[in-house]
Amino acid sequence: MIELRSDTFTLPTEKMLQAMVKTPLGDDVYGEDPTINQLEEQVAEMFNKEAACFLPSGTMANLTSILAHCPRGSKVLVGNESDIFIYEAGGASVCGGVIYEPIPTQSDGRLLLEDLEKVFDFDPEDPQFALPSLICLENTHNRCGGRVLPFEYLNSVRRFANERSLPIHMDGARIFNASVALKCPVSEIAKYADSIQFCLSKGLSAPIGSMVVGSRKFIKDVRRWRKLLGGGMRQAGVLAAAGIISVNNMVDRLEEDHKRARQFAEGLLLITGIELDLKQVETNIVFFRVTDPQFTPEKFIEKLKANGIAIETLGHGRIRAVFHRGVTGKEVDEVLDVIQKIMDK
Amino acid sequence: MIELRSDTFTLPTEKMLQAMVKTPLGDDVYGEDPTINQLEEQVAEMFNKEAACFLPSGTMANLTSILAHCPRGSKVLVGNESDIFIYEAGGASVCGGVIYEPIPTQSDGRLLLEDLEKVFDFDPEDPQFALPSLICLENTHNRCGGRVLPFEYLNSVRRFANERSLPIHMDGARIFNASVALKCPVSEIAKYADSIQFCLSKGLSAPIGSMVVGSRKFIKDVRRWRKLLGGGMRQAGVLAAAGIISVNNMVDRLEEDHKRARQFAEGLLLITGIELDLKQVETNIVFFRVTDPQFTPEKFIEKLKANGIAIETLGHGRIRAVFHRGVTGKEVDEVLDVIQKIMDK
Amino acid sequence: MIELRSDTFTLPTEKMLQAMVKTPLGDDVYGEDPTINQLEEQVAEMFNKEAACFLPSGTMANLTSILAHCPRGSKVLVGNESDIFIYEAGGASVCGGVIYEPIPTQSDGRLLLEDLEKVFDFDPEDPQFALPSLICLENTHNRCGGRVLPFEYLNSVRRFANERSLPIHMDGARIFNASVALKCPVSEIAKYADSIQFCLSKGLSAPIGSMVVGSRKFIKDVRRWRKLLGGGMRQAGVLAAAGIISVNNMVDRLEEDHKRARQFAEGLLLITGIELDLKQVETNIVFFRVTDPQFTPEKFIEKLKANGIAIETLGHGRIRAVFHRGVTGKEVDEVLDVIQKIMDK
Amino acid sequence: MIELRSDTFTLPTEKMLQAMVKTPLGDDVYGEDPTINQLEEQVAEMFNKEAACFLPSGTMANLTSILAHCPRGSKVLVGNESDIFIYEAGGASVCGGVIYEPIPTQSDGRLLLEDLEKVFDFDPEDPQFALPSLICLENTHNRCGGRVLPFEYLNSVRRFANERSLPIHMDGARIFNASVALKCPVSEIAKYADSIQFCLSKGLSAPIGSMVVGSRKFIKDVRRWRKLLGGGMRQAGVLAAAGIISVNNMVDRLEEDHKRARQFAEGLLLITGIELDLKQVETNIVFFRVTDPQFTPEKFIEKLKANGIAIETLGHGRIRAVFHRGVTGKEVDEVLDVIQKIMDK
Repeated sequence: MIELRSDTFTLPTEKMLQAMVKTPLGDDVYGEDPTINQLEEQVAEMFNKEAACFLPSGTMANLTSILAHCPRGSKVLVGNESDIFIYEAGGASVCGGVIYEPIPTQSDGRLLLEDLEKVFDFDPEDPQFALPSLICLENTHNRCGGRVLPFEYLNSVRRFANERSLPIHMDGARIFNASVALKCPVSEIAKYADSIQFCLSKGLSAPIGSMVVGSRKFIKDVRRWRKLLGGGMRQAGVLAAAGIISVNNMVDRLEEDHKRARQFAEGLLLITGIELDLKQVETNIVFFRVTDPQFTPEKFIEKLKANGIAIETLGHGRIRAVFHRGVTGKEVDEVLDVIQKIMDK
Repeated sequence: MIELRSDTFTLPTEKMLQAMVKTPLGDDVYGEDPTINQLEEQVAEMFNKEAACFLPSGTMANLTSILAHCPRGSKVLVGNESDIFIYEAGGASVCGGVIYEPIPTQSDGRLLLEDLEKVFDFDPEDPQFALPSLICLENTHNRCGGRVLPFEYLNSVRRFANERSLPIHMDGARIFNASVALKCPVSEIAKYADSIQFCLSKGLSAPIGSMVVGSRKFIKDVRRWRKLLGGGMRQAGVLAAAGIISVNNMVDRLEEDHKRARQFAEGLLLITGIELDLKQVETNIVFFRVTDPQFTPEKFIEKLKANGIAIETLGHGRIRAVFHRGVTGKEVDEVLDVIQKIMDK
Repeated sequence: MIELRSDTFTLPTEKMLQAMVKTPLGDDVYGEDPTINQLEEQVAEMFNKEAACFLPSGTMANLTSILAHCPRGSKVLVGNESDIFIYEAGGASVCGGVIYEPIPTQSDGRLLLEDLEKVFDFDPEDPQFALPSLICLENTHNRCGGRVLPFEYLNSVRRFANERSLPIHMDGARIFNASVALKCPVSEIAKYADSIQFCLSKGLSAPIGSMVVGSRKFIKDVRRWRKLLGGGMRQAGVLAAAGIISVNNMVDRLEEDHKRARQFAEGLLLITGIELDLKQVETNIVFFRVTDPQFTPEKFIEKLKANGIAIETLGHGRIRAVFHRGVTGKEVDEVLDVIQKIMDK
Repeated sequence: MIELRSDTFTLPTEKMLQAMVKTPLGDDVYGEDPTINQLEEQVAEMFNKEAACFLPSGTMANLTSILAHCPRGSKVLVGNESDIFIYEAGGASVCGGVIYEPIPTQSDGRLLLEDLEKVFDFDPEDPQFALPSLICLENTHNRCGGRVLPFEYLNSVRRFANERSLPIHMDGARIFNASVALKCPVSEIAKYADSIQFCLSKGLSAPIGSMVVGSRKFIKDVRRWRKLLGGGMRQAGVLAAAGIISVNNMVDRLEEDHKRARQFAEGLLLITGIELDLKQVETNIVFFRVTDPQFTPEKFIEKLKANGIAIETLGHGRIRAVFHRGVTGKEVDEVLDVIQKIMDK
């Protein structure tokens, strides 16, 4: 199978597996796993934040961050197309008594300041209104096709948040795709947010794990919530060993995934019955539509599957292809060939 | 002062006060207050539902209803302009672990089926997605200017909900304004909803209290949540005595409030510098805008206040006037005169 | 019926009813009900606290207090025999994500410092442990037979709490029974607690309502939670009017209820087949047991009921009699006669 | 260091590490990790339950189980000395609105039926009372020194629960220590519970992970809560590979840990100034006290640490030693020698 459904399907590299076997271990619930400690220190430094914490998933990384930022009964401002709002089962309401306030998401992943502004159009002294306590951004933005938030925008949201004494959390599951696309160190992006979560397990190819970075006080709270939710793990160093290779060795190669995505998108453009917007393709994700009326998205996906290609829809009738270490340039050409043939019939 | 800010300012009638003094009382926490029991039975019958429950406020009536309908971690579909979403402090997330899914509200208060439909565009077997468990409608719709949901619409939402095995809760804080406008018994509207809450304390003039109606099983659950939230009251019959007069004697006269609203709206139309949409005025609420650039809404309201008229904004730069037993036709004319004079300067 | 089940059955006095009819009213959700404002100011002063808030029930008064004191995920220390733990449906866990830590209750209602101490026997830095955030006392203590907490004890708990920077909330549903028994102003007791709730609706005879007192900041939070739970009421002045009479005119007469309780207890002592501990009777509650093997508590209660006397069990096979304005000295003698006759057979 | 603090310090075996490197992987969030699937099927069969689910920790295994069993606002009955109540941060109240009802724990880990019975001494129709929805047992019982619940007891609790239509959840973090001690297949114990969690990461030596077993419907709910809490992991097969070896190859050797515990306990008995109850030592845990007044527990532990031995207190002034694959018989003798010398001074 050529796997285009998600970069979460990346398998660990041989080097990761060897590291997992050899790394020194301890009980991380006691804070004694040296490999976890090394990873956390290194990541904090990389993001130029005081501290970092390893978690079993991006969902828990986002959830603990929201719990650490937002008191019970306050509002978290999230994009209505964000992964936090759509794919994480509403955990912040369930575990934190936090109210989601979905903000319209622009096609490039931005939440307009004027839309954020509306949430503040109420008297904060009036107990009828739940009070905003956090703004969440997503970067790169999954359901907007891997779009990168521009610095100018980050800067303006930061100012907006500062004026209202509100923290910013960045769901940076694919933050390294953003830093690679912007050709800057990840800390340049991280400085606009109070906390950032990112996944070791997507393009960075580790089997399991996400990290949250932020202030020492904030990370202490994240650890408290991690324990409560059941995210404290024992010899977690086996996973951190892979994570260390992710952040050390796997970041630069994301550039290749971006090239594959571009190669794929440009190829698709030449195929009649397929529609996409090339300028939306900034990182490793390509959204397109099948406009040929003989194909529903489901039927199209079925055809690809029969040809050994796994791909899926992602809302609003769109098809998403995600590029990662497991997909070669040659395979991209194969996929384009298959699609061409399918559409020709 | 002429009070146009809200019909919640209505004072109890002399007859209500006398009834409160004379009615037989008991401890309602033990279920032994005869006046409460009479009110609950009468209201259930009026709405043609199995049972009814008295609560200290509309907020608690809506909250207990959501708690009774929605399991922890499920989604309640609410209008993004609904009172439940905006004015009730997010209680369902805090007390119930329920996620609010705000649906775009049409200018007449309807939630389009196609917008509701989008919430079901996810695999219910996939644990990433919180599952919808309730649709909330508001009727009449406060922030849409007291608009009445038409029967055809109610019928279509009912079918939509039935197909998805979802209950409907109606926030009918002003449901009797709807039934009076539609010239039908309230049970004709109630039949489209599984549960309805309405306020005794708005146009119906009781000092305190709201009611929820629904199935016997549902009302039993509402009582359980009422106790937990602290809404169980002792000699609540003092309030029910007024409530009985509300539902027996105060419903028909809402027609007068609607006439006053119409009188006011038609008068406003003749004043330069004021803008409103007359066809939006269906019950006792009038929204308008001051288009004369010399007045911000706040400044305009200040001017009215100096002339003995209380009124306020209600989102999106609009001014809301609400008509009720405390406002006579003569006073409406006075208010129009004052506005005319203010705008003339 | 002679009503001994609870002092919650007290009916409003004629004076209260007249005050309810005549008092000036406003919309308390807007903070504009003058009678509510008067009551709140007067009560704050009486307790020598910065502020007070009116609520529809003791349950909500306790719940909002816990929500205002305790962050999500912290522990509230409550007596295992306290009304908060047993009779309030677990609201703090449901609405606040607060964990109840039940502490053994001594027969006089005290929680021993050594038992409170045990809860602190864990490393507060270790995220395995939920952290204590509040101590709740009950005074007088319902399930301990109306016992009054002595000053010496209050003083020692206050010191204990101060050393650990923990606030104290007092469930003083019957705090005026305590102040009358101790022959001191209620502020003398209140000074040992950060917040106190008391009921206008028990011995003080108002039909509905409880109050919370505390610091201005705390009461502001209580109001926020009250709104969220649905305890904000409109023309609440109708209830406050009765409440003002409760605190002004009904406190001193509680002494009579204590006399009746003593009269009843001393009478019971002379009846064979009944067991009670006279020194436990400090206020208006008498607990006793029927030791005569021919009677289960249920059967005994049934017999009394057949003789026009309402009474009930209250845990651990005990029978509770509560004395209040609705029970005269002559009726106490009647009840004793009936019991004597029942036991004689 | 000789590590006696916990069996959570066990390191993965060489065989486990090799399996983790070689096992086939997939994305378990999509349900496509073959190693996870194999482990879950095998474990379900081993426990003779319909289904099983892998989780990152015992805390999450217990928490998801409680969330799956207990509706919001209901009570979970837990031992007051149970790990669920003491060491898991109160997650069920925070994430589920579930109230903990701590039951006195006997020295052998049993909760007496008469104590459980008391929780049912309230009218289930009365909304004042939170209703019990689950009984939790712990087996072997950590804070009772690794005691094994006898079959006769399990049978009586099962009958008790059946009569009240209540499910039983067993925190079997060390359930295989129980089955080895009882010389029976684990399914013989599992049949008394509706759900069981156990840890792959304690005596069974896997680096990370716990399992829950139960009915198909229940496990589906557990998966839903796991996702919400953030316990869904990607190539979780790396961990499952170790887990498969845990359940296949590591169970029988727990017998050795029990022998070491016995060896240690018998040795301690001969040392003056140490106190323990030999008949309490049934599995791999030994609790003892230092009665020699020259040593506080902390000072004693310090002395051991200086001699290369890690050990810790575990409540009530007791010291806990836990035996596992990382401690040899020779090391047990060394530890005894060190203690003898310390006490001799």
